[in-house]
Amino acid sequence: MTLIVQKYGGTSVGSTERIKNVARRIAKFQSRGQQIVVVVSAMSGETNRLIALAREVQAHPDPRELDVMVSTGEQVSIALLSMALMDLGIKAKSYTGPQVRILTDSAYTKARILKIDEDKIRADLDAGYVVAVAGFQGVDEVGSITTLGRGGSDTTAVALAAALGADECQIYTDVDGVYTTDPRIVPEARKLATITFEEMLEMASLGSKVLQIRSVEFAGKYKVKLRVLSSFEEEGEGTLITFEEENMERAIISGIAFNRDEAKITVLGVPDRPGIAYQILGPVADANIDVDMIIQNVGHDGMTDFSFTINRSEFTRTMDILKNQVQPHIGARGVIGGDRIAKVSVVGVGMRSHVGIASTMFRALAEEGINIQMISTSEIKISVVVDEKYMELAVRVLHKVFELDHVS
Amino acid sequence: MTLIVQKYGGTSVGSTERIKNVARRIAKFQSRGQQIVVVVSAMSGETNRLIALAREVQAHPDPRELDVMVSTGEQVSIALLSMALMDLGIKAKSYTGPQVRILTDSAYTKARILKIDEDKIRADLDAGYVVAVAGFQGVDEVGSITTLGRGGSDTTAVALAAALGADECQIYTDVDGVYTTDPRIVPEARKLATITFEEMLEMASLGSKVLQIRSVEFAGKYKVKLRVLSSFEEEGEGTLITFEEENMERAIISGIAFNRDEAKITVLGVPDRPGIAYQILGPVADANIDVDMIIQNVGHDGMTDFSFTINRSEFTRTMDILKNQVQPHIGARGVIGGDRIAKVSVVGVGMRSHVGIASTMFRALAEEGINIQMISTSEIKISVVVDEKYMELAVRVLHKVFELDHVS
Repeated sequence: MTLIVQKYGGTSVGSTERIKNVARRIAKFQSRGQQIVVVVSAMSGETNRLIALAREVQAHPDPRELDVMVSTGEQVSIALLSMALMDLGIKAKSYTGPQVRILTDSAYTKARILKIDEDKIRADLDAGYVVAVAGFQGVDEVGSITTLGRGGSDTTAVALAAALGADECQIYTDVDGVYTTDPRIVPEARKLATITFEEMLEMASLGSKVLQIRSVEFAGKYKVKLRVLSSFEEEGEGTLITFEEENMERAIISGIAFNRDEAKITVLGVPDRPGIAYQILGPVADANIDVDMIIQNVGHDGMTDFSFTINRSEFTRTMDILKNQVQPHIGARGVIGGDRIAKVSVVGVGMRSHVGIASTMFRALAEEGINIQMISTSEIKISVVVDEKYMELAVRVLHKVFELDHVS
Repeated sequence: MTLIVQKYGGTSVGSTERIKNVARRIAKFQSRGQQIVVVVSAMSGETNRLIALAREVQAHPDPRELDVMVSTGEQVSIALLSMALMDLGIKAKSYTGPQVRILTDSAYTKARILKIDEDKIRADLDAGYVVAVAGFQGVDEVGSITTLGRGGSDTTAVALAAALGADECQIYTDVDGVYTTDPRIVPEARKLATITFEEMLEMASLGSKVLQIRSVEFAGKYKVKLRVLSSFEEEGEGTLITFEEENMERAIISGIAFNRDEAKITVLGVPDRPGIAYQILGPVADANIDVDMIIQNVGHDGMTDFSFTINRSEFTRTMDILKNQVQPHIGARGVIGGDRIAKVSVVGVGMRSHVGIASTMFRALAEEGINIQMISTSEIKISVVVDEKYMELAVRVLHKVFELDHVS
């Protein structure tokens, strides 16, 4: 018997009417003899409502208590979905994260899944139930409620699919698949029938926002077949996230990703000695600030410059840490930064076997007068940081120069 | 060190401003060196909002799933209160019912507490925390969330006080104590400084609604010192619920209780043989319908009539059960009933040592032309069923004839 894990986001369960629609969709799958586990998010707006309520009481809400509050959003959704299913005559049962026992670490508001007890769910599936599981949440070793951070419901779905050995994990969202870039910026953007896990990872982390990055990592690690579909269209194959090289004929570049939520920081005149990267980034990591790009060029005269990017909302806090804790400690010359930047990236596994992608990219940007502030590359991605005001132009130019509007 | 369990109802935590007020009140107690466990209800209106949402999806919401949903109300309250306490510099920590592990049976929407694991709370109190516990909820043996039914937060508070051996359990509510009767009906009604557990039991079950009856039973059983206070007044001693005979000089009658939420049913021409009461009420109990008054007079010619009262909302369902399952089975002559009734009771431990209370009561009602439909008595209470339209008049007349407006 086929076992499918489906995940519906906040918009898909945004009203009781929509929840009933989701139930009808599930009924169709079940009538084909499939076992179904459904992971749901909070009704759209609910998480923000709860956070706002918390902030009325405490300017910076205590993370443990915030998780206690915010996790109620999904708890309401699973109950409503189970009721909607029962109303269609389908046996259904809900579980919160703690009830499944989705064990996580204790990093409130951004916990990581350690282990899933899948026994209860499996028993219910075998007894003919559709099982609704609250996304985004778990429980730590001492029984405190944790949440996985925004978008964590995707991770819950993939982790459940892995634990249950599901045949497919379907992420229903308000888009019908993964596009070569954002159609709001490039109208010619095209839906991809397939994309590799690695490309998806690069796309997601760079701001394509269709799937949460951790869920893609999980899927890759546990070889979960992952598909992105629209919850508003009745048919459609969405985009299947594949293991690499299933399609040898694929395009060199799969998409153009971008992100304007970043800020850049440069530590100037850093002594060029072993351990310096750790001395700079250690205090940043200790403050739980995620670093994205990291760039260090070859030094000269025993000195070098060290740059990195972070989420824009952490800009002031990170500058403070560097100026007060890092700079005096390592004896750097100065700390500068800016938060009016955007990152634009070309992503594609084909890059590995094709030369000249970088130069094509840089030439296309130069021809439009777009100055490149930082460059960082991986095996399947080239990212540049440019002035924020050029972001849309850069995306359009690159989408065109790599011919992403044509089916390859 | 003194340990106090305080309970705040939905109105007391009805907004973030009110939650902050509760936090300030708790701060005052804590500054006197008291250990405090706070039990909170859902913010007023929240439980009804959730139930309405459930009914949009399923006309008769599944009880298990309804409990999953409704329990989120208190979960939000404990988190907000903990944050408000921390904002005042007080160490605070929240627990849901399942997290404490308030073990209940599996009667969803009306579960009963079986056992409380108090270890975690005690450890937190010893570490200087104020502990906020979600009222009204628990968890059954298999890990499903349960709720205790409306007013269950009082029961949670008393049960916790019993488990922790607290010095006092304080129920903060929107009234400042227990009155001789409802001041909206009798303006001369007077606040009682003390009331015995037994009287409180009779008052609560008869509709005085200050405390949930189960919480009073619990308090009596485990000898918990229980006090009702106003959450809106800064000072005031409220009403202390005492063990009997602490005050030998107390009034004969403590109060007049009433309830218009009942309906009466009479089974006519019941064969007068052993086991007949069980045969009539068994099917009613199986349908989870609570029976209040039960009256059976001496029979003649081998036949008798059997009457009882139930909650008015269960009237139709109960009539159906009796007509379809009970009457044909036991060979009764008929089933009649009415739901336009009210029950009025005089309550007082003094009744035990004073004669003539019943005749005073019946004469006072007769003088006003109020016909008595049913009578039921206990050691400390006399209840009569009258036509609903006479209820207020009966309460006023009895309050006067027993001189409850004078301090005795």
